[in-house]
Amino acid sequence: MFDQLRFDYLSCAGHPALETPHMDALAARGVRFTRAYVQSPICGPSRMSFYTGRYVHSHGAAWNNFPLKVGEVTLGDHLRARGMDAVLIGKTHMKADDAGLERLGIARDGIIGTRVSECGFDAYVRDDGLWAEGPDGPYDAKPSPYNAFLRERGYSGRNPWHDHANSALSEGGEIASGWLMHHAGEPANVRETDSETPWLTDRAIDFLEERRATRRKIPWLCHLSYIKPHWPYIVPAPYHALYGPGDVQPAIRDPREREDPHPVFAAFQRTLVARNFSRDEVREKVIPAYMGLVKQCDDQIGRLMAYLRDSGQLDDTLIVLTSDHGDYLGDHWLGEKDLFHEPSVKVPLIVCDPSRQADATRGTTCDALVEAIDLAATFVDMAGGAFPGHILEGRSLRPFLHGAPPADWRAFAVSEYDYSCTPMAGELGVAPKDARLFMVTDRRWKLIEAEGGFRPMLFDLQADPQEFTDLGASPDHAQIVATMRDHLARWARRESQRTTLSDAAILARRSGGGNTGVLIGAYDEADVSPADMTAYRGTAVPISEPDPAEEAGGS
Amino acid sequence: MFDQLRFDYLSCAGHPALETPHMDALAARGVRFTRAYVQSPICGPSRMSFYTGRYVHSHGAAWNNFPLKVGEVTLGDHLRARGMDAVLIGKTHMKADDAGLERLGIARDGIIGTRVSECGFDAYVRDDGLWAEGPDGPYDAKPSPYNAFLRERGYSGRNPWHDHANSALSEGGEIASGWLMHHAGEPANVRETDSETPWLTDRAIDFLEERRATRRKIPWLCHLSYIKPHWPYIVPAPYHALYGPGDVQPAIRDPREREDPHPVFAAFQRTLVARNFSRDEVREKVIPAYMGLVKQCDDQIGRLMAYLRDSGQLDDTLIVLTSDHGDYLGDHWLGEKDLFHEPSVKVPLIVCDPSRQADATRGTTCDALVEAIDLAATFVDMAGGAFPGHILEGRSLRPFLHGAPPADWRAFAVSEYDYSCTPMAGELGVAPKDARLFMVTDRRWKLIEAEGGFRPMLFDLQADPQEFTDLGASPDHAQIVATMRDHLARWARRESQRTTLSDAAILARRSGGGNTGVLIGAYDEADVSPADMTAYRGTAVPISEPDPAEEAGGS
Repeated sequence: MFDQLRFDYLSCAGHPALETPHMDALAARGVRFTRAYVQSPICGPSRMSFYTGRYVHSHGAAWNNFPLKVGEVTLGDHLRARGMDAVLIGKTHMKADDAGLERLGIARDGIIGTRVSECGFDAYVRDDGLWAEGPDGPYDAKPSPYNAFLRERGYSGRNPWHDHANSALSEGGEIASGWLMHHAGEPANVRETDSETPWLTDRAIDFLEERRATRRKIPWLCHLSYIKPHWPYIVPAPYHALYGPGDVQPAIRDPREREDPHPVFAAFQRTLVARNFSRDEVREKVIPAYMGLVKQCDDQIGRLMAYLRDSGQLDDTLIVLTSDHGDYLGDHWLGEKDLFHEPSVKVPLIVCDPSRQADATRGTTCDALVEAIDLAATFVDMAGGAFPGHILEGRSLRPFLHGAPPADWRAFAVSEYDYSCTPMAGELGVAPKDARLFMVTDRRWKLIEAEGGFRPMLFDLQADPQEFTDLGASPDHAQIVATMRDHLARWARRESQRTTLSDAAILARRSGGGNTGVLIGAYDEADVSPADMTAYRGTAVPISEPDPAEEAGGS
Repeated sequence: MFDQLRFDYLSCAGHPALETPHMDALAARGVRFTRAYVQSPICGPSRMSFYTGRYVHSHGAAWNNFPLKVGEVTLGDHLRARGMDAVLIGKTHMKADDAGLERLGIARDGIIGTRVSECGFDAYVRDDGLWAEGPDGPYDAKPSPYNAFLRERGYSGRNPWHDHANSALSEGGEIASGWLMHHAGEPANVRETDSETPWLTDRAIDFLEERRATRRKIPWLCHLSYIKPHWPYIVPAPYHALYGPGDVQPAIRDPREREDPHPVFAAFQRTLVARNFSRDEVREKVIPAYMGLVKQCDDQIGRLMAYLRDSGQLDDTLIVLTSDHGDYLGDHWLGEKDLFHEPSVKVPLIVCDPSRQADATRGTTCDALVEAIDLAATFVDMAGGAFPGHILEGRSLRPFLHGAPPADWRAFAVSEYDYSCTPMAGELGVAPKDARLFMVTDRRWKLIEAEGGFRPMLFDLQADPQEFTDLGASPDHAQIVATMRDHLARWARRESQRTTLSDAAILARRSGGGNTGVLIGAYDEADVSPADMTAYRGTAVPISEPDPAEEAGGS
């Protein structure tokens, strides 16, 4: 998994200037899904959905650093129950539910508490890649494995993550912080092999080597979770110089998008990041750096694949390449992600199944509506055993990989966004529980429902694939809005919390199952089978006799 | 809390033949809520909503014996955090989430595991009152405190709950099982003082006496949870003979309800209990017994109130009287509960607040739309401290008690029913996740949305208060259906799972709060305050110099 990698910044997905031969090679070995949507276009909730296989509306960790409830079942729980390990290398953006752990008396440093705190993974390396520091302290108070690595490698400063890996150096020896995008074109002051993407590739190869050396073979899932091409937008040489303004694609934007936009869209357009990405000089500086970061990611995929091939592991390893969300990069007059235009909510998704059953689909694309939660479902399905469809809300992609697409595949995809913590919610005067957006798309239409009394947004993806014309207020489209709202309402009513009882258990109860003598509505013996009456026949002592307690000599 | 007590079987609620002077006295001391709806008209899910303050759609324990997820926060958790105890005497119908406890390594017999298994209560007595036995074993495999009590009192047989307390005796000394409703008119073969309702009253008085004797005063909530007037419909003398067929009110039913009913309604009409309760001879036998059970309940409330008064506890005890759901008793051609007609989904609710602020409302009624989840909210509100509105979905009733009804009180109430385990679901061919119903009512209209492709049901509570005319298919009411569906859709989209972060915490983040140096979208220093740049200024060693690792003496 990459972080903030756009679906269209792969050459196999059509980028005209960026060559990603190693990702393309994966696509040639597997299936590339062209309509893969994340459950929320921002790290935290998106990842909690990848890791639980459940919608944000189900797990509740709706924004960055919203703790994931201690009771949520994770991919790791499902896989361990099927005899597999689930290992983390890199980022999760997981915030532990400390209050829940305390309430249930679970020690955070025990094996269970540690897994609960790591979203169900056993952490080989946990590094969220955001070692920011402000006047009120660090963004992430945990020790930084990457900073420890850089220090060991001799890098100077209190925070070499910032001072070296994410900053350039001025001619006068001053740190030119990568937090300021006008430094994006300069090289990060770190050796390329010590930068974050190769560092995590190294850790992954370490892990794979350790597992190869282990005599007792436990099958594993390895969540190699890269930090890049997420900002700060700065990359070491030679990647900083590979691309220039001439490689930057025109922004997907239209002046009409600034004329009376939906109030929530308008508020996001007013943010600093949106205003800056709406300036050509910013895009021309930042996007080449972003492309350099992606190119470095691609090269590291190449390294990893070469290692797997050379060590003979390529043919028994299922490989998935994806991202947690995209990046506007100035499209639609926005920066960052958060909203539901395709560059933000759609992600690259390539799945390589090494099995023979997948041979027929190698190198193909699939345009079915896929959701991020389908990956956990796919992994659990691949691991075998009864499928926990009462917990996992996604569906296995295996039928697509094996050339047998299900006839009853979902007709619409849903994504969500909670902007309650943002200044935009304050600006719009929206209460926390109302600062939420829901996207529902059926391939042709994309509706965005906004809580808090706002009108919806609506796009016609067929007539207007670039999503410039918001039809949410169009009287001609009232029926489309109503239909899309019906989809969303049915989705919202779904049974998402009956996670303690499987459908199979319910069907067993329905068909009779254990007869435990509860005889509802029987009037006389004609209504009851003789067997059912067995426990209820016999004689008893009448209470008109002396007090039975006295009779028994009792109390 | 009583079990299966109809809202209209109290004389203060207008029953013409049944006198309930003790419940009426409570109503005279407090506020009687005339539109109190349960979250699901069946024991298990209704109670899990009472105990969590959350909708069934939120906690997921959607039917009897669906385990409540280990992570759910209960009323007991909230009260203990506020320095109170939460004690159970009687029934909860709680099914523990054993798989969740095991997954999280929580010992079921520890103090936390025990509370999790008892829905957050400390159990003084846990007795669900259903000691049925069938060919496949007992309905409830736990030891029966009530059977232990009866044995100690000298009652005979393996299961004196059935053989004595819930059965009559034939002239030949044979057990005449209370499971067969044609025995309903006979007296249960148990001394009245040993029957279930007085037994639980005795336990409550024991508890209160123990607490009174304790020097260290910890405020408590006592969930005194009676088993009756729930079936088996049989009651000891003299209550079995207090009422006769002349006291039975006419069934609220209409022949039109059997003409082309909604398929789900039709399936419930076909059940044994519905068919039997549609026979007058059955109603005339069962309803007098039901009335006798209610009369006994009323007398026990009288005993309890007398004890509280005599022991000087009446003036510092908040008292709430309610039920977990109603009973059709033949209304609408149905028996049992399950569906959403008023006799099933509406419950009695009387709240007596002893404080002076409540003086102005004593003896009044309130017709606001109240939901069962409002009680947990009321108790937590009364206990003080920050209100956990991110967990509790109900609202405190205190403003109503204190004569200041909120202007923004809810405009609609919701109830749910999951019939996935019933044979009716099999008969209708409905998958487990589709065998669900949602009721939404705004006082005038009541819509019932049925998953699984069925049309909705709709009743006009103003023009048709007896709910005989289902307008769900009426073209003239399409707009009403659409409006009620909008209410339901908004409800279904509510944020119910963000239970780890309060609204106050979100507002604090929104307004800035900790600045931890994440500088999104800054182009140059003009975009950033000098303080924000502090951590990012300084000098660094260029990597074009010799390898820093070597320079530092290497790794």
